[in-house]
Amino acid sequence: MAVESSPGPLDASRLEIKAVPNPKATPDADNPDLMSLKTSTDRMITASWNEERGWTNPQVVPYGPISLMPSASALQYATQCFEGMKVFRGYDGRLRLFRPLYNCERMLKSATRICLPAFDPQELLKLIHKLCELEAPKWLPKDKPGSALYLRPTLIGSDSSLGFKVPDEAQLYIFMVYWPAPKSVTINGGTAPQAGTRLLASRTSAVRAWPGGTGAAKVGGNYGTALMEHGIAKKQGYDQVLWLYGPDRQITEAGATNIFVIWKTSSGALQIATPPLDKDGLILAGNIRRSIIELARDMFSTVTVNKELQCEVLERKITMGEVEESSRSGRLMGVFVVGTAFWIQEVSEIGFNGESIKVNIGATTHVLLLRERMTEIMFGKRESDWVDIVQESG
Amino acid sequence: MAVESSPGPLDASRLEIKAVPNPKATPDADNPDLMSLKTSTDRMITASWNEERGWTNPQVVPYGPISLMPSASALQYATQCFEGMKVFRGYDGRLRLFRPLYNCERMLKSATRICLPAFDPQELLKLIHKLCELEAPKWLPKDKPGSALYLRPTLIGSDSSLGFKVPDEAQLYIFMVYWPAPKSVTINGGTAPQAGTRLLASRTSAVRAWPGGTGAAKVGGNYGTALMEHGIAKKQGYDQVLWLYGPDRQITEAGATNIFVIWKTSSGALQIATPPLDKDGLILAGNIRRSIIELARDMFSTVTVNKELQCEVLERKITMGEVEESSRSGRLMGVFVVGTAFWIQEVSEIGFNGESIKVNIGATTHVLLLRERMTEIMFGKRESDWVDIVQESG
Repeated sequence: MAVESSPGPLDASRLEIKAVPNPKATPDADNPDLMSLKTSTDRMITASWNEERGWTNPQVVPYGPISLMPSASALQYATQCFEGMKVFRGYDGRLRLFRPLYNCERMLKSATRICLPAFDPQELLKLIHKLCELEAPKWLPKDKPGSALYLRPTLIGSDSSLGFKVPDEAQLYIFMVYWPAPKSVTINGGTAPQAGTRLLASRTSAVRAWPGGTGAAKVGGNYGTALMEHGIAKKQGYDQVLWLYGPDRQITEAGATNIFVIWKTSSGALQIATPPLDKDGLILAGNIRRSIIELARDMFSTVTVNKELQCEVLERKITMGEVEESSRSGRLMGVFVVGTAFWIQEVSEIGFNGESIKVNIGATTHVLLLRERMTEIMFGKRESDWVDIVQESG
Repeated sequence: MAVESSPGPLDASRLEIKAVPNPKATPDADNPDLMSLKTSTDRMITASWNEERGWTNPQVVPYGPISLMPSASALQYATQCFEGMKVFRGYDGRLRLFRPLYNCERMLKSATRICLPAFDPQELLKLIHKLCELEAPKWLPKDKPGSALYLRPTLIGSDSSLGFKVPDEAQLYIFMVYWPAPKSVTINGGTAPQAGTRLLASRTSAVRAWPGGTGAAKVGGNYGTALMEHGIAKKQGYDQVLWLYGPDRQITEAGATNIFVIWKTSSGALQIATPPLDKDGLILAGNIRRSIIELARDMFSTVTVNKELQCEVLERKITMGEVEESSRSGRLMGVFVVGTAFWIQEVSEIGFNGESIKVNIGATTHVLLLRERMTEIMFGKRESDWVDIVQESG
């Protein structure tokens, strides 16, 4: 990946740390305010860039409003991209990031797609580590394992020219909000009752992403334009939109998560399938998506696995016609969605063409086992090279 | 059009006007800083909205930075839309807006598409009049006719929740920047030499808009995602991207403007054609676009028009194959692009598939006549019900 090295690269070693004048009290985990996803930690990291000078020294500053001209490129032309990550407090008392370099590399790809400046993903990762080191100990105390903070690295075009052009000024900031623990996460292998997510298939008149668009990049424009269809789904009592594409109603994503189907082929063999990342760029290459594919292959598709669990794991086009047919013929064993924000959630129903496709939850134990394994890795119950340990002083 | 009327509607009659502590000096018209499109007038109008309370009283405040939380919906999920308009200082000393209600109504459509709050377009129009009344006299003095300011009404989601949801807070602001006079505008009918705009056709891997997307709305996401292709065109020495769509390479827009073709049919009849606004919503319904269609019909397609000028004016699908074929057979008489920002510009060349299609400038006088007519209307040389006069005190 091309990394801009001059002028002034993003350099985590030059981080300047400012004191926090008014540290907040940490909220109780069951504080209803947390559900608003507005509760940030005390500080954020910022760095700004302009075309001539490059990147300024990054700074740790109190979390608070940023100032932009009304004409700023990010507000007029949506020159903006972001990442979503979490830092976890493990049962061994340590802080972990989950495959974080992948997010940093994807952020560079998103930035490039939306004509925002380049940076070395390793430097971004160092900044993320530093912010976690400074903020997480207070917000994720060692005596509260199983908790997490959600990290949001954001890059925006701050150029104040109204001209339609590549921004010559930009701002990077990294902040964290308190994230309520999903009720279905159970570290001890128990199966907490879960209602299941209900998806409403998108109408043909609403398309999330298209070939030559930005579906594969994490840019703001993908999200705002999806809100209207999301609102329609919510109004009908569904949780998320199931985004379809093309005349054959291919499944692409669900809400802002990736989707997997578990079914039996006509010969009776079990498959876990997810739509492929093809050249059309319709699908965001999720970090949890790839991890689930890798884990599922490792856990379920080797010859040593017990017969009941054994299945093929594949990336392939999935159409609604196939889902309907598998449901009708009793071959649909499960559907689940995965993403950093909302983890791994089973789908209980898909609304499509005015009909409801019911999906069994728990018909197989694959999702349960995958969730358990991911939870073990993230919260330090199982050794894995997928996690970065955040160093804490003292 | 549905207009939200409670709680608290947007109400221009409640406008509160604040003093300007430090008025700026007006720049000279040839000041090179003006080219940056960063030179605003002294004041802007703002109003904020939240779901419970509705709209606050609008305020006239000094133009300056706005403050947003880093998590603001507009910065994360591109919940943002805008309009582009101009206010003109006429040769009769009066200030005019060009068909401004159309822009206000389109802004409501864009806002609705991106799940931002509704407002009465008539109230927005009143606010725009008021800002012009307050600001334009200083910036467009009566002794400098033929000048214009560019207006940018903007609506953004300011909700600071990181959750993916319809914003429950928003901010409206209206500001104006000094706009350099395009060199080709000539009020006295002279034909200033014009180099012509050079367009590079988009690659199949870059698509501006898609059925079910937001191509017909003026939302930020349409613009940032187009910057990469724009950069490729610029690097190759072109001025704008000619946005094509579909396997038959339909022409949709050029840069952020609408496009017209003048050609002879195989039977030798003259046509002015522009792509249609169809249900796919690939094309922004430009104010200048519709005005040019109406004017051209009025000026060129009635039986009383002189033979040389007589032509059919139609909205129809136009493919690159047709443009190429008309060029090869000598039937391509002209191409021009129209928009509020850059007016009416003739195209001299289209780069397509590695070839260059040269387009004659001035092969017919239609563009010249249209530009002249539009200029006469905007700058008060001709009576028209297309313009709103801005009331000035004193």
